[in-house]
Amino acid sequence: MSDLKDNKSFVLRAIEDVAFEERPVEEPGPDEALIAVRKTGICGSDVHFLVHGRIGDFIVESPMVLGHESSGVVYKGRRSVGSKVKTLKPGDRVALEPGASCRVCDACKSGRYELCPEMVFAATPPKDGTLGRYYRLPADLAYRLPDNLSLEDGAMMEPLSVGVHAVANIAAFRANQTIAVFGAGPVGLLCMAVAKALGAKRVIAIDISQPRLDFAKSYVATDTYLPGKPSEGESQIAYSKRTAAEMAAALGFPERGVGAIDLVVDASGAATCIQIGVYIVKHGGTFVQVGMGNAEVTIPVTVLLVKEVNFKGSFRYGPGDYPLAIDLVSQGRIDLKPLVTHRFAFEDAGLAFQTTKKGRSDDGKSVIKAIISGPE
Amino acid sequence: MSDLKDNKSFVLRAIEDVAFEERPVEEPGPDEALIAVRKTGICGSDVHFLVHGRIGDFIVESPMVLGHESSGVVYKGRRSVGSKVKTLKPGDRVALEPGASCRVCDACKSGRYELCPEMVFAATPPKDGTLGRYYRLPADLAYRLPDNLSLEDGAMMEPLSVGVHAVANIAAFRANQTIAVFGAGPVGLLCMAVAKALGAKRVIAIDISQPRLDFAKSYVATDTYLPGKPSEGESQIAYSKRTAAEMAAALGFPERGVGAIDLVVDASGAATCIQIGVYIVKHGGTFVQVGMGNAEVTIPVTVLLVKEVNFKGSFRYGPGDYPLAIDLVSQGRIDLKPLVTHRFAFEDAGLAFQTTKKGRSDDGKSVIKAIISGPE
Amino acid sequence: MSDLKDNKSFVLRAIEDVAFEERPVEEPGPDEALIAVRKTGICGSDVHFLVHGRIGDFIVESPMVLGHESSGVVYKGRRSVGSKVKTLKPGDRVALEPGASCRVCDACKSGRYELCPEMVFAATPPKDGTLGRYYRLPADLAYRLPDNLSLEDGAMMEPLSVGVHAVANIAAFRANQTIAVFGAGPVGLLCMAVAKALGAKRVIAIDISQPRLDFAKSYVATDTYLPGKPSEGESQIAYSKRTAAEMAAALGFPERGVGAIDLVVDASGAATCIQIGVYIVKHGGTFVQVGMGNAEVTIPVTVLLVKEVNFKGSFRYGPGDYPLAIDLVSQGRIDLKPLVTHRFAFEDAGLAFQTTKKGRSDDGKSVIKAIISGPE
Amino acid sequence: MSDLKDNKSFVLRAIEDVAFEERPVEEPGPDEALIAVRKTGICGSDVHFLVHGRIGDFIVESPMVLGHESSGVVYKGRRSVGSKVKTLKPGDRVALEPGASCRVCDACKSGRYELCPEMVFAATPPKDGTLGRYYRLPADLAYRLPDNLSLEDGAMMEPLSVGVHAVANIAAFRANQTIAVFGAGPVGLLCMAVAKALGAKRVIAIDISQPRLDFAKSYVATDTYLPGKPSEGESQIAYSKRTAAEMAAALGFPERGVGAIDLVVDASGAATCIQIGVYIVKHGGTFVQVGMGNAEVTIPVTVLLVKEVNFKGSFRYGPGDYPLAIDLVSQGRIDLKPLVTHRFAFEDAGLAFQTTKKGRSDDGKSVIKAIISGPE
Repeated sequence: MSDLKDNKSFVLRAIEDVAFEERPVEEPGPDEALIAVRKTGICGSDVHFLVHGRIGDFIVESPMVLGHESSGVVYKGRRSVGSKVKTLKPGDRVALEPGASCRVCDACKSGRYELCPEMVFAATPPKDGTLGRYYRLPADLAYRLPDNLSLEDGAMMEPLSVGVHAVANIAAFRANQTIAVFGAGPVGLLCMAVAKALGAKRVIAIDISQPRLDFAKSYVATDTYLPGKPSEGESQIAYSKRTAAEMAAALGFPERGVGAIDLVVDASGAATCIQIGVYIVKHGGTFVQVGMGNAEVTIPVTVLLVKEVNFKGSFRYGPGDYPLAIDLVSQGRIDLKPLVTHRFAFEDAGLAFQTTKKGRSDDGKSVIKAIISGPE
Repeated sequence: MSDLKDNKSFVLRAIEDVAFEERPVEEPGPDEALIAVRKTGICGSDVHFLVHGRIGDFIVESPMVLGHESSGVVYKGRRSVGSKVKTLKPGDRVALEPGASCRVCDACKSGRYELCPEMVFAATPPKDGTLGRYYRLPADLAYRLPDNLSLEDGAMMEPLSVGVHAVANIAAFRANQTIAVFGAGPVGLLCMAVAKALGAKRVIAIDISQPRLDFAKSYVATDTYLPGKPSEGESQIAYSKRTAAEMAAALGFPERGVGAIDLVVDASGAATCIQIGVYIVKHGGTFVQVGMGNAEVTIPVTVLLVKEVNFKGSFRYGPGDYPLAIDLVSQGRIDLKPLVTHRFAFEDAGLAFQTTKKGRSDDGKSVIKAIISGPE
Repeated sequence: MSDLKDNKSFVLRAIEDVAFEERPVEEPGPDEALIAVRKTGICGSDVHFLVHGRIGDFIVESPMVLGHESSGVVYKGRRSVGSKVKTLKPGDRVALEPGASCRVCDACKSGRYELCPEMVFAATPPKDGTLGRYYRLPADLAYRLPDNLSLEDGAMMEPLSVGVHAVANIAAFRANQTIAVFGAGPVGLLCMAVAKALGAKRVIAIDISQPRLDFAKSYVATDTYLPGKPSEGESQIAYSKRTAAEMAAALGFPERGVGAIDLVVDASGAATCIQIGVYIVKHGGTFVQVGMGNAEVTIPVTVLLVKEVNFKGSFRYGPGDYPLAIDLVSQGRIDLKPLVTHRFAFEDAGLAFQTTKKGRSDDGKSVIKAIISGPE
Repeated sequence: MSDLKDNKSFVLRAIEDVAFEERPVEEPGPDEALIAVRKTGICGSDVHFLVHGRIGDFIVESPMVLGHESSGVVYKGRRSVGSKVKTLKPGDRVALEPGASCRVCDACKSGRYELCPEMVFAATPPKDGTLGRYYRLPADLAYRLPDNLSLEDGAMMEPLSVGVHAVANIAAFRANQTIAVFGAGPVGLLCMAVAKALGAKRVIAIDISQPRLDFAKSYVATDTYLPGKPSEGESQIAYSKRTAAEMAAALGFPERGVGAIDLVVDASGAATCIQIGVYIVKHGGTFVQVGMGNAEVTIPVTVLLVKEVNFKGSFRYGPGDYPLAIDLVSQGRIDLKPLVTHRFAFEDAGLAFQTTKKGRSDDGKSVIKAIISGPE
């Protein structure tokens, strides 16, 4: 858009090479809107691109704007909202869903757009991300925030939607069920929060860091478990089986029926966690893999068979996940504020990434979620 | 029952030690029936007990009658049918479901009795099997055979129900979907047959034996695939990924949408098969593990996640599986006769087991299913 | 049981003819338990039998003990618990599920025992009810009460399970959905309470009695609506359509999407309520009929078609409903105490029925639920 | 498109007033295609607009091109396929799905686009229909026909998709289930054909015309039933209840279990049919309303409740219905040819409508489906 010349953006040029660059502002089409970005959270995947220049087959081959966990305000200029858009008006505060799907493939039409092969996703090469002054997107992917939600809450809708998708959608978790979540990082914590908001009987957090478990307990977990270490010479699978038994004994959950573990969510990506999860989930229970880590993992498949476990992958988010995420926060069932541990100005985006990468700031405070404000 | 003294049974006394023994005849309770056993198929699990004396935690600690794939006739004597039984009368030809569940636990009451922790299953220690003259069971587990089904068909209902459970029940396979089945042994072939009976668009058989594939093609498969061998130094997972790509190229199925592989059933239990299966199944597709083999298998879990694969275990059979199995055969949608390759008299039960163990008879004919008649 | 001679019971002998009679105590079978009844709620169906001597095809042809909403204590005598029972011991406080199904039919085995054609149900002819000193039942139908639940809570588990079945099971209501319930009597209120416990976004109560609506609002409803009266000459269906539009305008819910009425439950059985319900439910929404009233009702079936409404019947309760009911109360998500408005001694059972029939006690207090204690 | 001047179209100008008019040709957008229409079936709704000028709230207020059951060929001129279209090329033979949804609303994104409030549907005011030389539509709504399907088959995909939607999608009909279909007109017959293709155990046709039943039997029904007439003074509901009992006796289906009526589809819209259907469907069974007729119908709602019937509306078709329809015909599971009873040239479109309206041609032959060819 010719009248909007200033679109300073935070760009990844190569591995560990970031810079602020001006980018052209894209004119919204009839179904689109132009958003002035206000708050952007940093995700592990952003850091992964920074450090490795790739995630799997997605390779940063040319400079790419980073960021995809954003909220903003519909730009208060003319032509900021496309001619067909009825749901937005300039000034509306919105959470941004960063993936635009094709809307015509089988996946899109059958209600699973997260599987669209033509998905264009912010800060996934070659698509630029949201860490600029303006971001253009289809208007239905900009969700108006209720008055009682802050713009920081809005930026948190992206990771929260990952939890909503895994727990409410893929697992179809229901009230009075018991969940165990491996990994008490942002996504794991948000999976726990969703399960609690849906009426979980018991929310069990498992992590190898006691401080993380302490936070999970103070946040939403009803129980925590710190697994022991492998014995000398013990195989990985033997360790996992033993740990599962110890965990059951320590926490006192039954193998079956009401009170047994209906759902395991692995948000760690660690092989032993996945193994332990298969051992502890109840007969007929569900296991949802949401964490990416070890690309290949040894699974006790005979146990999975005999228990008729339902082992499902959960990828990003799909129809209805953002609206449910927003409503759960707006109704007070989920509180996102305790998760935002660090805040940075846009000019300090580099520092924000480095701090997230290190996992703690110079004052020693652990990072759960760092949020970048602006640009102003 | 005091008037039935002769109940010659085929008993496993210890590893590779079988004998014919007389066993007492059990009096049917009010809800039970006494069946004169007529035909019994031999299953891989029977042979496994013969050779190893155990399967997992089920250990043969005292002599046990073998056999659990049986049909028979409701005994034509007095008191053969319990006082409350309305569905059977002496002389009825029946297929026997070999597992009696408790009927009061959560699993039983919620429609998944295959997961009952109190399951009493024929020829699973310590419960005696069906290879005797008489077998007592709850009357609702003796299913009357339509006139156009033979007693051999009746004995085949047990393995067919395994296929029905995996494909129709656990996978909820629907008309016009495409299935790929790893392992063209009895269970794999029956999974293919069920998929075809349910209206499969395409039934792809994968096996490392060309003669088995040839049989599958002559039976129900629309396509077959013989995987190549690993290259020198190639890792198992690299081999599996490469083979998946080669298979897709050779058979010409798309990655997504109509014609893509909606369902993979692994009836092999082999690690590479399971890996290839995860690679070839479509985004949003289903994988059902029905074969027991490698207890632990390395799975490309990130691929599973990104594709949101639904990976499910299928164990034995549950509500409605026997009736559907019987109807599909009675309606001519499945033909079981080509699968019965070998027949033995009751007196030759030992030879029947040895032949099944070897996989072929002395005349070189491969065993798919061997059936023992009698005792007369 | 010969040692338990005193089993005074409250018996319906004919229409409006009740009396206390001694009844023999039934010896528990191996899977059964003998319960000393402590608290029994009175249900509309009990009153219906009292007044009409029948409900549909169920006709009281010989004297029948009344009552089916009961809690009690496992009798502290010998042989009070069958030999196979592991889940109960004398003295346990329990809620009683009053219907014993056959456990062998298709319905029972497939997880819908509420549809069992052989169901034997307390106080449904010819089966005696629970209003005696002792009641014998299958042990798995006596659910132990957590310590924080009273025996009155236990008696309320029966009507609460009706609500759980309708809302959680049949409708599969999920967090953040909106429900509208017609009829603010005990079952309607409990459906609202279940919806709220499951995380309803909005709970709308509709009734023709403002005091009932006031109670609903004070209890769990977020919104209430008192329909107007038909205009002169207005047809029933025209009235219903108009009222639906007025209700939508008054309450401000959208026709579709988040915030629209996902679920209508009719607990009134009134024709106009059912009609209004079909008009207000969202496109693709669910309607659950739980109230019995008009046997035949005129339904705007073209509207139902075009909106693809899912209109379902809900009958009694099935697998998992009692356990979920107990847990929701134990976790504090549902408070049953406000619903118990009247209490009577066993000796005053006749007065309890008359008071429930009139709908209010002599002091003018409206009856929601009357509970009979004892016999001591 | 300026180079395509001749677009003769068959236009409804007012009630019973039709004419051929030239219409401008619309230029395809980037995601669209321009189709040369070849075959168009006449639907009851087309005739309804002709005779009444409206269907419900859809009123013909200005001249409208008729027709929405069409096939054609992608126009062989330049710019006939939009720039983003990858799935079509000029000359492709295609079936046309006549409704274009908005793709951004909740219904569209969650996999139920048939409920889209912004649906633009051919020959539903104010949108013009397909009975012209050219028709423009989104490219994903033009489905390529396999070589073994004719263009007449292609035109039949529209009504067949109505059957697929009702039976395969809304009812989730499965192999070995029993279906009863009320109304043996085109939609009823196609619902039967779909059920048979999905592996129905039994397909029962009910109609008040014996010739229609005879055709249904010769086509796909396994059983037929001609209901008797009401007795003098018999109420409608009493008649329906009696007829249901007589039908059960005559056809010998059980009330429950395997062989009972799992699914009723009403394609008649007649009140008595809907009532009979509720009486005959099994406990826990499904009823799908697909026929529009009586706007309001008296339903035995207590019976529906006690049996926990699932009564669902089915409207048009949604994701996956066209592809499944095409595949079922291509695989030979459904034969559409017997249904095309009358053929007309484009110039005789008026006669085609009048013949469909009368239900038979001058030679006395009953119309099932009349198809208009061209224009050439």
